[in-house]
Order: sequence, then structure tokens, then C-alpha cells
Amino acid sequence: MTSSKGRMIRLSLLDKLDHLSLGKRVRLHRLMYEHGPGNGRMLILPIDQGLEHGPATFFPNPDSANPEFQFKLAEKGGFSGIALHLGLAEKYAKKYAGKVPIVLKVNGKTRIPPDDHAFSPLTATVEDAVRIGADAIGYTLYVGSPKQPDDFNQFRKIKADADRYGMPIILWSYPRGEAVNSQGGKKSLYAIDYAARVAMELGADAVKLNVPVDDPENRKEQPEPYGSLEFTYEEGISRVVKTAGKTLVLFSGGSKLSDDDLIHRARACLEYGGNGLLFGRNLWQRPWNEALEMTQRIKKLMCEIEP
Amino acid sequence: MTSSKGRMIRLSLLDKLDHLSLGKRVRLHRLMYEHGPGNGRMLILPIDQGLEHGPATFFPNPDSANPEFQFKLAEKGGFSGIALHLGLAEKYAKKYAGKVPIVLKVNGKTRIPPDDHAFSPLTATVEDAVRIGADAIGYTLYVGSPKQPDDFNQFRKIKADADRYGMPIILWSYPRGEAVNSQGGKKSLYAIDYAARVAMELGADAVKLNVPVDDPENRKEQPEPYGSLEFTYEEGISRVVKTAGKTLVLFSGGSKLSDDDLIHRARACLEYGGNGLLFGRNLWQRPWNEALEMTQRIKKLMCEIEP
Amino acid sequence: MTSSKGRMIRLSLLDKLDHLSLGKRVRLHRLMYEHGPGNGRMLILPIDQGLEHGPATFFPNPDSANPEFQFKLAEKGGFSGIALHLGLAEKYAKKYAGKVPIVLKVNGKTRIPPDDHAFSPLTATVEDAVRIGADAIGYTLYVGSPKQPDDFNQFRKIKADADRYGMPIILWSYPRGEAVNSQGGKKSLYAIDYAARVAMELGADAVKLNVPVDDPENRKEQPEPYGSLEFTYEEGISRVVKTAGKTLVLFSGGSKLSDDDLIHRARACLEYGGNGLLFGRNLWQRPWNEALEMTQRIKKLMCEIEP
Amino acid sequence: MTSSKGRMIRLSLLDKLDHLSLGKRVRLHRLMYEHGPGNGRMLILPIDQGLEHGPATFFPNPDSANPEFQFKLAEKGGFSGIALHLGLAEKYAKKYAGKVPIVLKVNGKTRIPPDDHAFSPLTATVEDAVRIGADAIGYTLYVGSPKQPDDFNQFRKIKADADRYGMPIILWSYPRGEAVNSQGGKKSLYAIDYAARVAMELGADAVKLNVPVDDPENRKEQPEPYGSLEFTYEEGISRVVKTAGKTLVLFSGGSKLSDDDLIHRARACLEYGGNGLLFGRNLWQRPWNEALEMTQRIKKLMCEIEP
Amino acid sequence: MTSSKGRMIRLSLLDKLDHLSLGKRVRLHRLMYEHGPGNGRMLILPIDQGLEHGPATFFPNPDSANPEFQFKLAEKGGFSGIALHLGLAEKYAKKYAGKVPIVLKVNGKTRIPPDDHAFSPLTATVEDAVRIGADAIGYTLYVGSPKQPDDFNQFRKIKADADRYGMPIILWSYPRGEAVNSQGGKKSLYAIDYAARVAMELGADAVKLNVPVDDPENRKEQPEPYGSLEFTYEEGISRVVKTAGKTLVLFSGGSKLSDDDLIHRARACLEYGGNGLLFGRNLWQRPWNEALEMTQRIKKLMCEIEP
Repeated sequence: MTSSKGRMIRLSLLDKLDHLSLGKRVRLHRLMYEHGPGNGRMLILPIDQGLEHGPATFFPNPDSANPEFQFKLAEKGGFSGIALHLGLAEKYAKKYAGKVPIVLKVNGKTRIPPDDHAFSPLTATVEDAVRIGADAIGYTLYVGSPKQPDDFNQFRKIKADADRYGMPIILWSYPRGEAVNSQGGKKSLYAIDYAARVAMELGADAVKLNVPVDDPENRKEQPEPYGSLEFTYEEGISRVVKTAGKTLVLFSGGSKLSDDDLIHRARACLEYGGNGLLFGRNLWQRPWNEALEMTQRIKKLMCEIEP
Repeated sequence: MTSSKGRMIRLSLLDKLDHLSLGKRVRLHRLMYEHGPGNGRMLILPIDQGLEHGPATFFPNPDSANPEFQFKLAEKGGFSGIALHLGLAEKYAKKYAGKVPIVLKVNGKTRIPPDDHAFSPLTATVEDAVRIGADAIGYTLYVGSPKQPDDFNQFRKIKADADRYGMPIILWSYPRGEAVNSQGGKKSLYAIDYAARVAMELGADAVKLNVPVDDPENRKEQPEPYGSLEFTYEEGISRVVKTAGKTLVLFSGGSKLSDDDLIHRARACLEYGGNGLLFGRNLWQRPWNEALEMTQRIKKLMCEIEP
Repeated sequence: MTSSKGRMIRLSLLDKLDHLSLGKRVRLHRLMYEHGPGNGRMLILPIDQGLEHGPATFFPNPDSANPEFQFKLAEKGGFSGIALHLGLAEKYAKKYAGKVPIVLKVNGKTRIPPDDHAFSPLTATVEDAVRIGADAIGYTLYVGSPKQPDDFNQFRKIKADADRYGMPIILWSYPRGEAVNSQGGKKSLYAIDYAARVAMELGADAVKLNVPVDDPENRKEQPEPYGSLEFTYEEGISRVVKTAGKTLVLFSGGSKLSDDDLIHRARACLEYGGNGLLFGRNLWQRPWNEALEMTQRIKKLMCEIEP
Repeated sequence: MTSSKGRMIRLSLLDKLDHLSLGKRVRLHRLMYEHGPGNGRMLILPIDQGLEHGPATFFPNPDSANPEFQFKLAEKGGFSGIALHLGLAEKYAKKYAGKVPIVLKVNGKTRIPPDDHAFSPLTATVEDAVRIGADAIGYTLYVGSPKQPDDFNQFRKIKADADRYGMPIILWSYPRGEAVNSQGGKKSLYAIDYAARVAMELGADAVKLNVPVDDPENRKEQPEPYGSLEFTYEEGISRVVKTAGKTLVLFSGGSKLSDDDLIHRARACLEYGGNGLLFGRNLWQRPWNEALEMTQRIKKLMCEIEP
Repeated sequence: MTSSKGRMIRLSLLDKLDHLSLGKRVRLHRLMYEHGPGNGRMLILPIDQGLEHGPATFFPNPDSANPEFQFKLAEKGGFSGIALHLGLAEKYAKKYAGKVPIVLKVNGKTRIPPDDHAFSPLTATVEDAVRIGADAIGYTLYVGSPKQPDDFNQFRKIKADADRYGMPIILWSYPRGEAVNSQGGKKSLYAIDYAARVAMELGADAVKLNVPVDDPENRKEQPEPYGSLEFTYEEGISRVVKTAGKTLVLFSGGSKLSDDDLIHRARACLEYGGNGLLFGRNLWQRPWNEALEMTQRIKKLMCEIEP
């Protein structure tokens, strides 16, 4: 509270929430204060990888193939919420009612067909989210895909429903598709910065972003000025947070990292403006004790770094 | 009841049913206890092959071209139910009302156009199933097909209706399409394991799976870790059952097998976690007496192997 | 009535009608008993060729370009009904109200675009059929076309409406499209047998079929067992009638035949199980007197051959 | 009235109107008797070329770029009506309310994209036509285009609305698309004769046709019997009128002709069965005085030649 | 008021507004008289470039990445309104309620996928515009794109809603797509003149146009008569204004120009018939003081040049 950076960011958080409707505020309060780290931070455990990546994702920790593993981790670890598709919610969530808030993923796909025309059809509706008592919905938008027009249209209708029901929207804003691949790739600053702005323009309440990577190999493939822009890990985070404006920013963990790399990622994301973390494989691909311990380390970080 | 395996699986069956709505429980009770083997097992006779494979499927047993054959077999053999399209139900089922429960297939296709972009349009609705007194619906989803987005969308609407009416959903979860073919094929563990998870993620109540085949010829075409995974027949069954989680699993018979192979398949599927069998051609492609006799052998197995 | 064949088929006719709703029975009664040959047979005069084949179809008999010709033929010849599109019905049918039952074609196309992706969009609705007092609708389904999914979907909705209004459905079940062409063609037994089964599976009340042709040239292009199946003209008819099960079967006349060939075709279709004939060009491409005379010869046949 | 041809055609006009609903009769009466030539003839001034051909169409007479020019011409010249899109009607028609009947074009396109898959999306609805007091709607159907299925579907819905509101439908029935181009072209008798029949089959009240051209160069590209059919200008007109049956026929003027050619065209179209003319560029691409004078000459013709 | 040109144009403005509904007049009054320059002129600040061009658009003036910059500029500079997507309006506009009228962009896209089949899906609805108190909507139509049919259909529905709610429509009428590129390009007079007419034909209330460029390099690629038409900057403006007829015309600024070029552009557009300006990057890509100063210079111009 004494550092100017702390104050600036705290003001920012209030600013990011102020315009939201009552229903969205009530529901986000559960994710940001009643559950999880508790000081306006969100730590969300996603288990949509069974659909997105297939059961191969559970091989490093076979116990994790049973969604009970993630639900228990979410409960014992004290997460802000768990993000998953309707089928898993219906089959496994009842036991955790009131203990583990739900972020219902409303669209998704498998990784089997090629990604060139990436598009995730609906797997549930906002009404489903209301019906099962979810506190937010998750929507995956493939920015830049040739199917972008269909995606925008589908999102617009989901957003209209979400606004009507006071349901917060977390947008998985992912650059994808052949045009993205040829302009620096899905991890380039050009792509992720654009994805951050798209989330704000289309009216997401929160956006899930990857951390941009400055890769000298494909830097030049990006349109200018990105094509000649060098940046540090922290500058990349800082920039996309700024671009997202009043949109809450959650950073993803991506594929599994070492302990140190994960802590480094978490710390950087939080210090440079992220409002929360969506870490899945990096937690539940570890055995139970390690997963729980790492969760506590990250939560501790989230409490230490002032939002 | 004394073996630990038996107990474990019985608990599992309760666990798989517990989250279901009253209507789905009532209807599944008919299929699992009032008809068929009767101890929570399902033995379902499908006759959708006339549409899916064409009348060629009836040549080995010309009597079977008349749906009366299958209806009589379902009645005399004491099946849990018969799975078929609306046209057959309307024309042949009235005589068996109350005696043979109906699983209404709500989508399908012919085999004439190539399978690269496999997709089965609707041939009926959940309302049709309610109207004709069906106890479940069957939906064929082609996991991994380029038409997967359309399929997911179509399934989601069917599921919403089925949930609204308390109608159980059996998902024919079939890997299919050019991307499946190039990644190990539709019988690979990669593909079937993925299909099992998709069924759970999308919210099927039961899933019909094929038994995965470990074929050294195309094993390596599969993504890792499947590409380097060797497994026995039983391990394959066990694995996809586990992946399906709380989704009831029915195994299909596929094209016609010898008596011994069929019994072996049935036994393995039941011992290693399957909740039931969907055997069609393997029964009604046999002459009447043989079909009835084989049915009795399989039902006996289903009663012997504790669920 | 004494021959076993006669009895078998008569039973079959009752059997084919028994499951139908009251409304469908009432309307079919008009086509099968009140009009036309009158003993459960249907003789329907189609004039949808102006749309399907273009005005070229009227050149052999220029008078036939005026739909009055066909309406008068239908009235004077005493047909069961006339099959046509909405535009012709609206413009020409009022004068024949109550005298000539209408089978409203609800979909169609021109022959101008290539047939590879054959699909017939709707030209009218079941509500139109109800409004103009039609006694049945006709729907053209292109079995095996790459557009088959759209066709199945479109048909399903038409069927739902037809069932709701008690309107009988005659399905023009036509194999068509590039995959059909490469597997023996649209006149092969493989294709027509499949089309007959599709009609039953999808729930048509009656199906219009072509007579399959055993052509040694392309026999082997068909999938087995059709690829090695030789059959006579009569066996072909008999087989597809059997495949259609409880679906009423009407055989088409196709392009114009000689008098003898036409009578032979009619006789064979009726003796080997057909419930009626849909003869268009073979009648109205003849001058008035010849058309009327040929109609009487065919009706006489239809009365002589026991249904 | 004394010539047999005159009588025949007059009977035909009554015949063409008799089946129409009250609302359509009332509205057509305004176009055929209260406005325009006044004896059952229609002379309609189209100004949809600004959309269909672009502003280039106004270069020969720059004044015509202002829709006031055409509205004044329609009023002073005493046309049956003016045919145009919704935007022009809303912006320019109020001043002429009651003086110039409106034919609202409900679909259209620009000429910029290639014509191979020609299809005109809706620019207005039948409800719009009712709301602005139009007396008919105009719909452009591209017969034979690869988009024909979409076009048929779109037209069917427009027709259903038009029938419901008693709004007459004038169908711009235009052969178009790659299959038309390869079979003799859009001006061939094959194509226009087909287009005339399509209009009748689909249920248009009136059809706008081009005059077919017998071009020895591409005559043989047409399917038989057209491929070997020679015909005069008058025979071409006469034939397509006959093919259109009870559908009222309006002939278009096409691109600008000399005075003599235009009068010749008008006279032939009227003498050989046309019910009216839809002349646009041939009138408003002339300076005001010439346009008015030519209008009077044509109207005089229309009064002289008995309908 | 003394120059004849001034009078002519003022009459024109009245003429352009006269046909509008009460609701549209009330809302346009806010943009044309209550806010902005105030004498019937519109000066609108667009900030949809974050979506259309990506965050790269904000690099020349990093402050502009925060929408507060543009909102403050719109307020302090006294613009007629600000044009933006729903997400920005929801997050940033509340503070400026009543001070900065909103033009809600209801469709848009990113620049990532190629432009060959340009089409902007909806990002909001007219109901959204009503709900947030907007005074107009903006719609981007890609004239000539292969997706033109979808665009026309989408626009028609938006227009129907806008008419129902009395919401003025500003049409971003942009030539785009492969056919445009091959016929002289998106800045050619052919393309922009066509776009102006399309706006009028489809019923836009105002149209945003680019200033056409006479480029000898690609002049000949345009269809005649444009292919041989030379014109000055002022003639180009004058011509497209005339083509737009009673549609209000707003000219865009395009990419950033020098001070002199921008003033020249503004003056020419206003003197030769434009009703207003939509200048974005040319204002907010400048630092705050320069942006404000340039705004004042342009507003001064807008007051001096009589509408």
C-alpha cells in the first residue's frame, strides 16, 4: 500500500470492476474475495484439457484422469474456481457445491482436426451456467482464424445472454489459424497484444492470455512496429495488460514448467499487472502433494504481491 | 460381491447413476433392471445398420431384412432394448409396446458418400422419442471429423432437449474423418480413448465405444504417448472405461465374429468395466435359433460377471 | 384371392397401412379407393418435369406444355392423383377441385446445374399442402449425394410437419451424386435397394422407386454382395419391394417407352409387389387419345392384378 | 376485338388473373387499369440499375443519377409503376404517393463480384412493401446458378409472405451462372424458356423475361431439342409466353436500343402475347424530352395492340 | 447565405433530412446541432481502429491506447460523437454520459485474416445501441466482396431494427475484396462511386466514404466509363456526394496526414458537399495538445463553410 505501484494497480482494479452490473459484481466477488487467495486475485484451475488435448494430457499424473482429483485439489487448495465443460460439472461438481465455484466453459473442441480454421462450437449455454450455479462462463475465441466471423457472431450472442443474466465472461482470447501462423505465430506480441484488445473491444469482463514470447526467429514475420520490437518477459506482460484496459487479465500457465519457471511466471504476471492466474496442467500434472504444495506457494505469492 | 474388483465396480455403477435426474433414472431403470439381463447390465440390439451400411448388411441372414426379425429377437431374447431410427419404430414397434424398450437413434447417414467429412444429420428429435415412448436416445458423434463443430452444436441442442425431458443419451462416440485416419485410425487407442473422454466432457449419460486395437502397423502414427504404448485387449478396454469416468460404457460388437471371439469379447468387456453391450450384426446376422442361443449365452455371462 | 401370392400381398397391404395415423389413412383412402383404379392401387400422374427437366420435356407432345392437358388427362383417365409443384396447383387446379386429388411436390430443382451435389430445396411447405387441400406430399431425396446431410435435415422437418397434419408422404427416393456414379450408378440394384431402405428408415409412408437394372457393364462397380449379383427384371422389383418393408412402393415410368415395354413394366411392377405406379412422360408425351387409351390399359391391369 | 388473335389473348388475360386472391387482384388492378396504359397492360419503369450496374449506368444521361428524374418520368409519362429498392423508395417516393405505384425490389446485388455463382440476397421484405404501400414486389431469381437451391428457398419464403399479404410477385427470372454459360448462354431459348416455366412452377404472378435470341454461334451448345431449333424473333417471344402459361409476362428492354429497334421490340412483345413491358435504361438514359416522347409512343402502342 | 452555392447546399441538407422518421431526426439533431460544430455538420471521432487495425494503431501516440484519451478528446474538443464498439462503450462511456454522443459500431473484424472475402460480423445489435443511449449506429459494408450476399442480408436486418427504433444508420461503405482489387482497387472512383450508390439503394441514412483517388496507374483497370475518366480531387468528392443523393455523406480521414494535407482534405470535403467528417487516427495519433488544436482548426472550418 505504500509503494506507488501498489496504489496504481489497486486503483486499476476498482476501475476495472466499477462499470460491471450488479449480478456480475456479486458473482465476481465470489471468485475474487470469498474463494481463492481472497484479495481481488483469481486463481482458477482449468480442467478442459481432456477435451482440448485429449486424455494424453493425464498421462504424466494418471490420477488426474479422474476429475475428482482436480475437484479435490480445487477444494483443498482453495482455488477461486474450477473451469470445465458441462459434462464434467454435471457428473462431478455436486459434491463440491458451494465449496468450489464453477467457471463453465461454454465452447470447445478436440485437437484432432487441424487448427488452420480453428473454431470452437458451443458445448453449453449461459442458461446452463445459471442453472448449475456457475459464477462465470469461459469462452474460447480464436482471434485471426478464418472462422473469426462465425466466432464473433457466436460470442456476441453468448455475451448478450451473459449480460442479461449478470454472468461474468472470461474470454480465452487465443490467436490461431493460418494467418496467425504466417505473421509471427500464436505466441508473438503482435498476436497476443491484438487478442488482448479484441477482448476489450468485444466486451469480455476478463481475458485469459498467454505470456508473449520475443522470439528473434520469427520476430520479423510480424507486421510493424512489432516486427522490430524487442522486449523482455516483463515488458511483454506489462504491455498486454495495458492493452486489455479495463478488462481483468488472467494469465495461463501453458504446458508444464519446472517449479522455478512456474513461480517466476506467476510472480511476473502478478507484479506486472495480471489480476489472476489460470494454471491447470502445471498443477494437476503433479502428484497430489506436489500439486497442493505448489498451489500454496502460488497463493502465497498472490497474497504478497499487492493487486 | 466378495471380490474387491466386484465391489469396486458395483460402487462405480451407483456412482455413475447418482447424479442423473429423476426422469433419466426412471428410464434407465427400465433398460438396466426391468428388461434385459436385469442386474444393472444393458444388452441392446441395434438395427440401424440398414441405414448406416445399407441392405447389404442383411444378406448373410435374409430374414433379418424384415425388422420383425430383430423385434422378435429382442422380445424372445429378452434384450434391454432395441436401437433404431424413427421410420422403423413407427412401422414395427407398436406390436411390442411395453415388451421391447426403444432406444431411438436421432441421427444417422448412409455409407455412400465418402467418410472424410463424416457427419450424421438428425433423423428424429427428442420430442419424437418422448412421443413414441422411448427410454433413451442414441446419437452418433464423429469425433475428430472436419464437421466436428457442426456435430458438437447439433449434439448440444439434442442434449438440452434430452435433459429437459429426462431422456437418457447414449452417445455412439466414433472417431472418424481424414485427421483420424492419418493419426492411427478409428480403432487406435488414441482415437477411442479420446472419444471416451469427449463423451464425458459433452455430457453423455452412456457411451458406445469400440474395443481399441493395438496394431503395430499404425501404432506410431498416433500422437505420443499413444505412439509408443503397447497394450493388451483387456488393458485397452480397461483404459477407455476409466477415461469415460462416470459415463456408462457400452461396447459394440462390430462386424460379425466367430462364436468364440464374440464370447471372448463380451466377457472381456464386462469383466474390465463395461456396463453393457450393443451387439447387432453379431446376433441377427445368425439364423434365428443360433441368434437366440448366442443371446442366451451372452445374457448368462452378463448375469455371472458382477457389475 | 386364391393364390398364395395374392393373399400374401393383400395382407401386406393391410399391414402397410395399419400403423398410419387417422389423418393419413383418410387421405390415402382418397388416393387408393375413392380415386384411380380403386382397389388399393395408386396410379399417379406427375407433372413436375417442367421444373425438373425443363420445357424440352413437352416437345414430343406440344399440347402437354399447357398443364390443362395433364389435368384433363388426370380427370378423364381417372387417376388417383396428380403430382405437381405449388405454382401449377395454384394456377390450374381449382377447376378440378374434388375431381383430381393433389400430391403436392414440396421440393425440386432444375437440371441446369450439374448433378454431382444434387439437392432439391423446398418449393412449398406441408402447410401449403393442407391449405390447398392436397391428399399427400411428394419429397425428392437424393440418397448418397454429398448434400445428403442437408437433405436428411430438410426431410426430417417436412416429416414432422406431415405427421402433425396427418399428411401422407411419398418419397421420391433417388440415388444421385458423384459417389453413386462411381459405385454402379443410379439404376444399380445397390443404389435402388439402398434408397428403398432409406425411405423406410426415415419414415416415408410411400416411396417412389425406379426399377433397378442389372447392367453387366457396371455391375462390378457396386460394393459386394451386389457386385457379383445377377438378377432378372422381376427379381429386381421383388427385392426392392421387400427391402422397403411396410413402405408403400410406387414405381416410376422413367423416360418414354414403347407401348409393349410400358405394359410389361407396369405388369411386372404390380405382380411383384408394387402398390402403384407414377407414370408421367409415358402417358402425357402421347397425343390425347393415345394417352387416354394407354391409361385405360394400365388401369385395367391394376384392377386385374390383385394387390 | 374482331381478330381471333385478339380474342384469344384477351381470354388469356382473364384466365391469368382469375385464380389470384382478392388482395393481389386489387393491387394488380392499380398497375393494370388505374395507372399506366390502362387496358390491362403494364408499363413499368425500373430504376434498380444503380445497384445492379452501378452509377456507370447514369453516365449517358447524367440527370438520371438523381432518382427524381425517374420519379418525374414515371409521373408525367403515366407509367403503371416504378420498380426500385427500399432505399430509393424511402428517400424519394413520398412526394409521388398515390401518383406513382411502387414495385418494391426485395433482392439485388452489385455487379462487382463475378456472376458464376449469381445470387441476390434480400434488400427488403414483403412487410416493407406493405408498409410503404407498394402494389407489387419484384424478386430476381437466377435460374441455373450454382446458388439455385438458396435462391429457391429464399423465394419460397418471400412468396409465402406475399401470398399472406395479397402482394403480387413479379419474378425477374434470369438464367445465370457457369452452367448457363456453357449451355448456350443467358439469352438462349433453352435458358429463357426454362426460366419462364420455372416462374410458373414456383408460383410467380408475373414474370419478367428477356427476349430470346437465336444465335447460330452458340445454338448447338444448348441441349436438344433447342440445339437444333431455329426461330424468329416473334416465334421466340410467342414460345416463352406460351411456356409461362397463366403467368403474366413482362418483357425487359435490356441495354439501350435505337428508337426503331425499341419500338420494334415493344410491338413484337405486345403482339405476340406479352402483358407488359419493363423498360428502364431505354427510357431514362434518354434526355427528358426524348424519354417522355418515347414513353408516349410506347403507351400508344400498348393501347392499340389489344391485350 | 449570400452565395448561391451556400443556399443550394443548405436546401440539400433539409432535403436529406426531410424523409427521416421522428426518432431519427431527434437523434441526428443531437449529432448535428446539440454537439459538435453545431450547424448541421457532423464531426465524429472513431476509435474502432483497435479492433480493425490492432493495437499497432496506438504506437504513434501511446497515450491513445487508453480509450480515456479519445473520450477526453471527444469531450474537450467538442465532437458530434464518438464511434466505437460495444466493449469500449460499456467500459469507458459512463463518465461521459450526456457529454459525448455515441455512435455504436455494430460490426467489425480484425485485420489478421486476409481481406479477399472481407465481411464484418456483428459485435452488437441495435437493441444494444438503444440500451446504452447511442444516437446512431455504424455498420461496415464491404461492397463487392465475395461475401456481399451475407453482408446485404445482415445489413437488411440491422436496418429493419434501426428503422423500428428510430436509430440513424451510418454506413461505412467500403469497396473491398478480390474483385474490387482487380477492377481498379478500393480507392478508385469506380469503387467509391458504386459504394455511394449502394448506400443510398440499401437505405443508409448517412454514408462514410473515402475520397476517391485518380491514379493513372490503375485507372484503366476500372470498367468504362471510369476507365477513361480523369478527375481532380474536388471533382471526385463532388461526384460521390452527388451519387449518394439524399444520403448524408461523411468523409473519412484515413491514415495519418500532414497538417496541411489534413486541412486541405477537410476543406475540400466540406466545400464540395460533404456533411461531415469522421477523423480518427489523424487526430488521436497526435499528442494531446496537437490533437486538440487540430480539432479546433477543423471545427472552425466546419463553421465557416456553409453547409
